Amino acid sequence: MSMPRAVRHINEIRALDAVFTLGPMSRATLARELGLTRSTAGAIVAGLVDEGLMVEGESDPGPATVPASASVPARTGRPGTLVRLRPNHALFVGTDIGVGRISTVVIDLEARKIAEEHEAFALDEAPGRVVERAFAQAAAILRALGARQSVRGIAVTVPGIVDKEGVVVRVPILGWSNVPVLPRLRETFPEVAHLAVENDANAFAMAELYRGGGGEAVRDAAYVFMDAGIGGAVVADGVLLRGHHGYAGEFGHLPLGGAGFSCAGVIPGSLEAYVGRGALLERHRFHGGSADTLEAMLARLAAGEPAALRTARDWCAELGRALAGLTALLDPQRIVLGGPVAAVSAYGPQVIAEALAAHVMPGQPVPQVRLSALGLDGAAIGGASILHRAMLSVDRALVYHAPR
Amino acid sequence: MSMPRAVRHINEIRALDAVFTLGPMSRATLARELGLTRSTAGAIVAGLVDEGLMVEGESDPGPATVPASASVPARTGRPGTLVRLRPNHALFVGTDIGVGRISTVVIDLEARKIAEEHEAFALDEAPGRVVERAFAQAAAILRALGARQSVRGIAVTVPGIVDKEGVVVRVPILGWSNVPVLPRLRETFPEVAHLAVENDANAFAMAELYRGGGGEAVRDAAYVFMDAGIGGAVVADGVLLRGHHGYAGEFGHLPLGGAGFSCAGVIPGSLEAYVGRGALLERHRFHGGSADTLEAMLARLAAGEPAALRTARDWCAELGRALAGLTALLDPQRIVLGGPVAAVSAYGPQVIAEALAAHVMPGQPVPQVRLSALGLDGAAIGGASILHRAMLSVDRALVYHAPR
Repeated sequence: MSMPRAVRHINEIRALDAVFTLGPMSRATLARELGLTRSTAGAIVAGLVDEGLMVEGESDPGPATVPASASVPARTGRPGTLVRLRPNHALFVGTDIGVGRISTVVIDLEARKIAEEHEAFALDEAPGRVVERAFAQAAAILRALGARQSVRGIAVTVPGIVDKEGVVVRVPILGWSNVPVLPRLRETFPEVAHLAVENDANAFAMAELYRGGGGEAVRDAAYVFMDAGIGGAVVADGVLLRGHHGYAGEFGHLPLGGAGFSCAGVIPGSLEAYVGRGALLERHRFHGGSADTLEAMLARLAAGEPAALRTARDWCAELGRALAGLTALLDPQRIVLGGPVAAVSAYGPQVIAEALAAHVMPGQPVPQVRLSALGLDGAAIGGASILHRAMLSVDRALVYHAPR
Repeated sequence: MSMPRAVRHINEIRALDAVFTLGPMSRATLARELGLTRSTAGAIVAGLVDEGLMVEGESDPGPATVPASASVPARTGRPGTLVRLRPNHALFVGTDIGVGRISTVVIDLEARKIAEEHEAFALDEAPGRVVERAFAQAAAILRALGARQSVRGIAVTVPGIVDKEGVVVRVPILGWSNVPVLPRLRETFPEVAHLAVENDANAFAMAELYRGGGGEAVRDAAYVFMDAGIGGAVVADGVLLRGHHGYAGEFGHLPLGGAGFSCAGVIPGSLEAYVGRGALLERHRFHGGSADTLEAMLARLAAGEPAALRTARDWCAELGRALAGLTALLDPQRIVLGGPVAAVSAYGPQVIAEALAAHVMPGQPVPQVRLSALGLDGAAIGGASILHRAMLSVDRALVYHAPR
């Protein structure tokens, strides 16, 4: 790539990102946003329109595309002529292998979901067979869209540890170890430029935080995924924290002291022994209850059973104390609680907030704590969002040599 | 900046960084290292030599400059003609305001310490007066070097929380709050291009990890600073983690359960209540000892007093458990223990390692735990190193508009 082309390329990415993040805008606004002259910005836009990534049009985009938010810049020039992304130019696929369920979603260049598909699998099915079915689901949804040539990337997410070569090192809950998912993905989709394998909690975190069209940006956040095990992900200054071996964000093993309500395979005193699904049900029995599934427990909470409410209160206090630990180490702006067990937090948000505040450094600002609004396709959306973000980011590799 | 100049500028920074990181090398090796043609690399080197940042010479640099390490690339072309940095071209100043002590160091373009100065101050001295004395120390050392015009930047470090505007929000141990150090630094050194105010633990972490000349690179690390309070810093993928409000790495408030040996102002059950200086001395009394200062405690450990050794063993077990919490969240490659109280860890490294291993997820790789080798000027060296790293880094701001 010649030198001027490299810089032009950087500015093209910045232009795409600005229009994605802030919504449609005039050329003049875009120029100001990028710190470029109008003529340079105009040349960038013309090139992107030629390549089919952007369109210019007269009509107002309407409130669904440009929310009336303070972060949308004032427009200048003829207000009716706006630059916007051409949504179908690039598609991003997220395929999630969950616990007994495969989900695929497709998002477009505006990061909107345009298709989804789901199917079940048996927990004792061979890993290789499950992976094949996941790939087949992705291929089928793209065939149905008639859009395989627009696919920029495919991300596969799994509820376990993934190493830097895209090998799924372990998925304790499925009993998988050392499954070479990325190599097989490359064999199956040799024509797709960007292929990735991701931990599902990382993907959930990305789905939770990723917003275009003037949405609020959160750059420092922790995502806690709560089911039988407790996992999670950390986003620091907008970037997923991975750690040296890919284990960052394994909140379930935060040591909290004492023993908790430990089940088989859970380290006594770990966060998992206090707020994991098994610990929740054990605690309910301790308080005289008898729920033997999470669904039964949630039903008793909804019915106001005293043992269930006492259990939820204790659970919230332990969770709040653990979130103080996350806050001490990471200082996030927001902590998002997700996964099936997170529903218990709705029965004691004030207890969580008080326990959190009681354990952080006096005077330290306390993060917002929110319950995730994502559904079961959250990880698949997050996987696709990671690829979308990569396309709209200028990073070292891109600056130096990677072609678009 | 015109487009070709921007890319040339990026390549100049990459060339400086390569020669700093790997040591002196031939033009041909540098070209290969940067992925540039020989003629482009030659033009970059010629420009840097003209500007005085690099020199080319015949003599072998000797083993002190280029360690015989696998990370040093094989040389090609005439082996005697090497490109190296011109150390005096740029100087970086770190001034640390510690607990009762001000230290200033100056490092050169090869990140070697070329001068240092220390003085004491009374803990009840007014913050403004202490800050003035720190600035005066920096000015005096530069006058003595006769090198004020080569100064690229000055970083001031403090044992407290610093916000994004360079205001020292709080230094509990000195009783400071809301001291506008960066604004005053700008008034005092208006001619210096890069001025910064940093938390001392962040600076210690940087000093600990920053190595040129073929040294081993550690990109994911946690630094735990142990004195009366417990602080720290996290480096993730080579970047200091700051958190949303600047509080990231405040390990002292990690909740570990129970009460610990809490003193005034320490939250019961926090890491500080288990391994801070006050907790250490309280625990010694609990075991029948009577040391009332850290120095006395260390003397009894050195003498093999049973109560002191029991205290150290318990202390190491609690520390190891806390380090498992850091490992669950951050997955560092290395954890470095620093500060005066860290010396206790030498009396139970095996206890620390066992407690750490017992609390991490089974199968998760355990980080190395090391005692810091830095002296009392560690924070000052780290502050200067942060500026040095900024000069040799290509970041978004630099790519887009910041002049050198």
